[in-house]
Order: sequence, then structure tokens, then C-alpha cells
Amino acid sequence: MFKRQTKGMINIDPLQTGGKLTEEAKRALIEWGDGYSVCDFCTGKLDEIRNPPIHDFVHKTLPEFIGCDVARITTGAREAKFAVMHSLAKKDAWIVIDSNAHYSSFVSAERAKLNIAEVPNSGYPDFLISAEKFAEVLEETKRKGEVVLALITYPDGNYGNLPDVKKIAKICQDYDVPLLVNAAYAIGRMPIKLKEIGADFIVGSGHKSMASSGPIGVLGMKAEWEEVVLRKSSRFKNKEIELLGCTARGASIITMMASFPAVKERVKRWEDEVRKARYFSAKMEEMGIIQLGEKPHNHDLMFFQAEKLYEMSKSMKDGRFFLYRELKRRGIHGIKPGLTRFFKLSTYGLSYEEVEAVLTAFREITEGKVQG
Amino acid sequence: MFKRQTKGMINIDPLQTGGKLTEEAKRALIEWGDGYSVCDFCTGKLDEIRNPPIHDFVHKTLPEFIGCDVARITTGAREAKFAVMHSLAKKDAWIVIDSNAHYSSFVSAERAKLNIAEVPNSGYPDFLISAEKFAEVLEETKRKGEVVLALITYPDGNYGNLPDVKKIAKICQDYDVPLLVNAAYAIGRMPIKLKEIGADFIVGSGHKSMASSGPIGVLGMKAEWEEVVLRKSSRFKNKEIELLGCTARGASIITMMASFPAVKERVKRWEDEVRKARYFSAKMEEMGIIQLGEKPHNHDLMFFQAEKLYEMSKSMKDGRFFLYRELKRRGIHGIKPGLTRFFKLSTYGLSYEEVEAVLTAFREITEGKVQG
Repeated sequence: MFKRQTKGMINIDPLQTGGKLTEEAKRALIEWGDGYSVCDFCTGKLDEIRNPPIHDFVHKTLPEFIGCDVARITTGAREAKFAVMHSLAKKDAWIVIDSNAHYSSFVSAERAKLNIAEVPNSGYPDFLISAEKFAEVLEETKRKGEVVLALITYPDGNYGNLPDVKKIAKICQDYDVPLLVNAAYAIGRMPIKLKEIGADFIVGSGHKSMASSGPIGVLGMKAEWEEVVLRKSSRFKNKEIELLGCTARGASIITMMASFPAVKERVKRWEDEVRKARYFSAKMEEMGIIQLGEKPHNHDLMFFQAEKLYEMSKSMKDGRFFLYRELKRRGIHGIKPGLTRFFKLSTYGLSYEEVEAVLTAFREITEGKVQG
Repeated sequence: MFKRQTKGMINIDPLQTGGKLTEEAKRALIEWGDGYSVCDFCTGKLDEIRNPPIHDFVHKTLPEFIGCDVARITTGAREAKFAVMHSLAKKDAWIVIDSNAHYSSFVSAERAKLNIAEVPNSGYPDFLISAEKFAEVLEETKRKGEVVLALITYPDGNYGNLPDVKKIAKICQDYDVPLLVNAAYAIGRMPIKLKEIGADFIVGSGHKSMASSGPIGVLGMKAEWEEVVLRKSSRFKNKEIELLGCTARGASIITMMASFPAVKERVKRWEDEVRKARYFSAKMEEMGIIQLGEKPHNHDLMFFQAEKLYEMSKSMKDGRFFLYRELKRRGIHGIKPGLTRFFKLSTYGLSYEEVEAVLTAFREITEGKVQG
């Protein structure tokens, strides 16, 4: 039996804080763990299954939750991005992507054989993506060739910055370029609706932010894109080509559905999460650990610069691994082994006691209360 | 809480008999259910993770098990097929596919924008794919344009037929066309090795035949294809483009690993499974229910023709749904609601008591011991 070493620890890994299963999802996982379990009463298409009630989840609950006309379940956010890019791609065409985008946005574009134009961020220390820069790069790229899609990451997974996505959507509309919002760190954490943004596509991650067992993602779009992205096979009339027929054909979709009521509720408490993150950030700065990215911060994912820890690491016997080791022995997991100077973390879903425990750990470590 | 209605029933759905979790996998599912759980100690690539020991599973255990040089985990068999097709696709190029192929093979080819040439089967009642026909279609198609890939389904998911895959591999080699073996109903059920077949790619399904929680699949290939199919991103040097970086980033991979020792063992008992299927088939035929496809049969997936049940359905108050209802009240699940004349089923993993219970049910039903 493979044991999970980090079980029971305080988890501050941004990848993981929003993906912890609810108790309902854990029960659903056991009930539906067997391969192809959800296909007991399938009539040919995952999103049409009525027992369990996948149909209602995909066609009513989800579109309402993310404010879109049409939604589908995918095997992940990256697979959703690729499906859109692959549908829109043309020979020699371009995609405009913010430079804070997740690596999988770039790799998806590469897989779809699109030329990539990058919108630079403002650099150290804020790393902001401005609507003006977005417009500038769109303008330049339009001169080079056809721009079939733009992508904005909201928020990005490095700094947790939330760009002015409505303004960017307006700009893309003016340039007649469809916009995809990668909301892998938004959907399931904070309120977000495609229609309010005014973009064309929105993508979310179940295992990252919707308390689901992976791999699973969601894809929402405006009605006008349904025929393009969800086009049907010429040979099998009910199979959507980009989804290869069916996607999350297993327990993952059930965990998303089982967690959904709790996820819907937690999104309403988003302001508390932001308040908690800002409190955490302020306390870290009191220790001389500087938060980079937007300030005041608007998301639980935060990036820090800790010169002091970096200096300390130089004299430690396990060098740059000392921070990981010190946090581990205090029951805290989530900062990548080997990082000391720059690292990201997330306070999402942490109780105030857990936040204090993490702060105490950093305080002790920066004060030199460490082993060897 | 969503309850699974079919729990505790005898399951003869071919989609599901090979995907039932082992007890080890169920425990692993709970231990690793949280989103992105396997990424606790990730250094940038799913197949390189050493805790849990995914690295060894992907790079040692799996290649040995399916007899290939290089293996990867995918989000399913269909996603593996698409990755290969998309890597090999060229403008106006062709793929040759056996007509017994799963719909997702055709849809994958459509998604990869390949022209499809179909190798017809021998028709009723055996529906065989012959090596000769395969050669013929290859020959014809080569005259129309470049054939970048051939695909053979071993066995197919309708009749459970096992074509002469070695002979077909030899033919493809002679024509210099790479061959992909879709072994979604083979890997994890029966002994099969890519090298013994002599093909280029092999694809399997975790949730279909490897006692895994979906969606998850495996892809094996000859070393010479690694640079083509697993080519790296130009921007992110350790990310494989076709896999979008990482695939089964969650509990599914752990269930496959946890079930693996049992799966490896059960494959050794394949002859018992074939014997059981043949026994079942013979008993069904005694009732006048005819098994189509290869005879004697060589796989647990069998297709039947039951004129008697079809005739009975005409006078039933719920018509063609009577067979489903009658099996259900006898605790048997897996034949699609509404089918009476033609249906498929699987005896995989059933105990002899369960086999007898299914046979008794069909005997009673064909003898008219039914409600209303």
C-alpha cells in the first residue's frame, strides 16, 4: 500500500489547497471508484447520463455557476484549453498569451501548432499584466498574421495576480479576437462568471480548485462557439470530436458533483479568504519576507521573496533544503524542496489556527530557531 | 450523496468487468483522493515522481508488462491513440483502421484530420478482420496518398474477436506503415507484449481492463518513436507536448499502481477466463441464443443473437425493455436497457456461481418465467 507522506500536515501548496476533497466527495469516490462506473446507464454520451445526474450538472448547474451558455467536463484545464485552441487553429495563425500564463497554456498552443505572441508583465516586483500591453501586443500581432485566440490567466499561478479581465475582454472584442480566460485558480475558489467578464471561453480545474479528484476540468463558452468547439463526428452523430466522445468517464466527475454544494458555498466566503491572505502577507513582511505581485493582494496564492532565508541557507548543512526540512518538522507541507529565496504558497481554506502555525514557523525559522 | 444503483449486482457489462477496483486500489483511492495529491514531491514531470513511486512504474514495471521500450500514462486509451495520430499526421495523409474499431479510434483520426480507410470485416456471423483484407486496403490506400498509420483493434469491443495481429504487423512492416494496436480489452486481462506482436504502438485502458479508477490509459511504443510522439516543448524542456506536460495527475494513477500486482497475477489465469467464456457461450447456444464472432471464442467479451428474446419482447408490456428488467430483478446488470435481439456481455472475473446465476436467468427468461 502506497502511503501518502504528507497526510495530516498543514498544506500550503497552491496546487493542492483548493483540491482537497470534501467528506461527500470521499464517500462518492468509494461508491463510484470502479472503472467506467458512471456508465451504468449511459445512452452514448457522458453529459447526457441522468443516473447519476451528470446531465443536470453539466447542462444546468455548471453553466449557471460559471455564467456561460454551454459547459462541458474535460480531463483537465489544459485539455480544455487545447480543445479550444485546436478547434480554432489555422495554418500560420497566432495566439496572444499573457506571459504569466501556466506552462500548459504555452504547450497547448504549441501542440495546436499556433504561433505564440506573448504579452509581457511589468516585471519585478509586481509582475502585472496590463490591458494596455495586451492591446499593444494584439495590435502588433495582427500585423503579422491572423490572431485566432487570446488567452488571459486569471489569476496566474505564480503571483496570484488578477488582471483587469473585463477591460482585456473589451479590447479583444474590439480587435475581433475571441478570448479564453484560464480560471484554473478562480473557478471553485472565488465568484467568477464568463458573461460578466464578456469573454468567449472560460476554463477551470476540478483537482486544483473544485475539491475534486483528478484529472478533471471544466470548459464554458458562449453559445456561438458550440458548433465550432463541440462539433460532432461525421461518422458518429452524437460524439463530440474535440472531447473524443467522452472525457471524465469515471469517479472524478462524481467527486466534482459531490463537492459542488460545498464549493458553491465556499465561493461566497471569498472575501474572508482575501482578508486572510492579506493578513498573512502583512505578517510575513513584518519578518522581512516580501510579497511580490499585486499589493494589496487579491488572491490566496502569494509569491514571496526571502533574502534572509536565502542567506541562512548558505550556512546550513543541507543548504537550500533547510527550509523544506524545517517546515516539515513543524508539520507544514507545500513549499517545494530546495526553495528559500523565492517561493509561492496558498492560504486557501486554512483555519486561523493553521495560519498562525505557519506564521509561527516562519518566525522561528527567520529567528534562527532551526536544527543544524 | 449519489448512490450507485447497481452496487452488489452481478456485473456483465464488458465496459466494467475488467475495471472493478481491487481492495488495494480502494484503499489507495482514499489515501490519494485529493486533487493533485501525487504531486507532493513532483520535480516537474509526472513520470519522474519517485514518491509515490510513479517513476519506477512508468519506466520499469509497465514497459516490462506490455513488452515495449517506452511507456507513458495517459488520461485514457482514446487520448493515447489521438496523441500518436496527432504526432504522425500530415496534410492529406491516410490512416487504415479495421472496421471493428472502437468509435473513439475513428473520432481520434477525425480529430487528427486524417483520411480514414476502413478494412471491412467478413460480415455476419463471424465479423472477422483478416490479414489479407488488411493488406488489400493498405495496398489500395497507398495508391491514394501517404499512409502514416494503421490501427488494429485487438480484440474489438463488439465481438471480442482477436485478429492475427502478428501477421498484420508483418504486413504493415512490409508496407513501411507503423501499426498501433488498440489493446484496451487486452492489457490487464490477457498476456500481450508489443515486441512479440512486432507492432509500433500499443494502447491500453486502465478503467476498462486494469482495475483502475478512470480516466486513465497506457501508451507503449518502440524506442524509435519516442522522439516523435514524446517530443518536448521548445519552451519548457522537460514537458512532452502531446501529453500537455502531465496526464493522470491524481488518484487514478495510484489505483493503477495499487491494482497492478493483482492485475499481473490475473493475466496468468487468462486460459481459465477463455474456458469460462466458452462454457458460457455453449450453454447460451443450448438455449437457442447464438454467439456471433469467433468460434470457439478466445475472449470474455461475447456478442449474442437471441431471436427468441426478440420475439418475446413483442408481447411484453414494456416491450424491448423486458430483458433488462428481468435480469435486473435477478440481480444482474450490464446488458443495455432496450436490447433483446443483439447484445454483448462479458464473463470476465465472474465466479462459476455467478456464471451459473446468469445462465439460470437466461434459461428462465427464455422459458417464459417472466413477470407480465
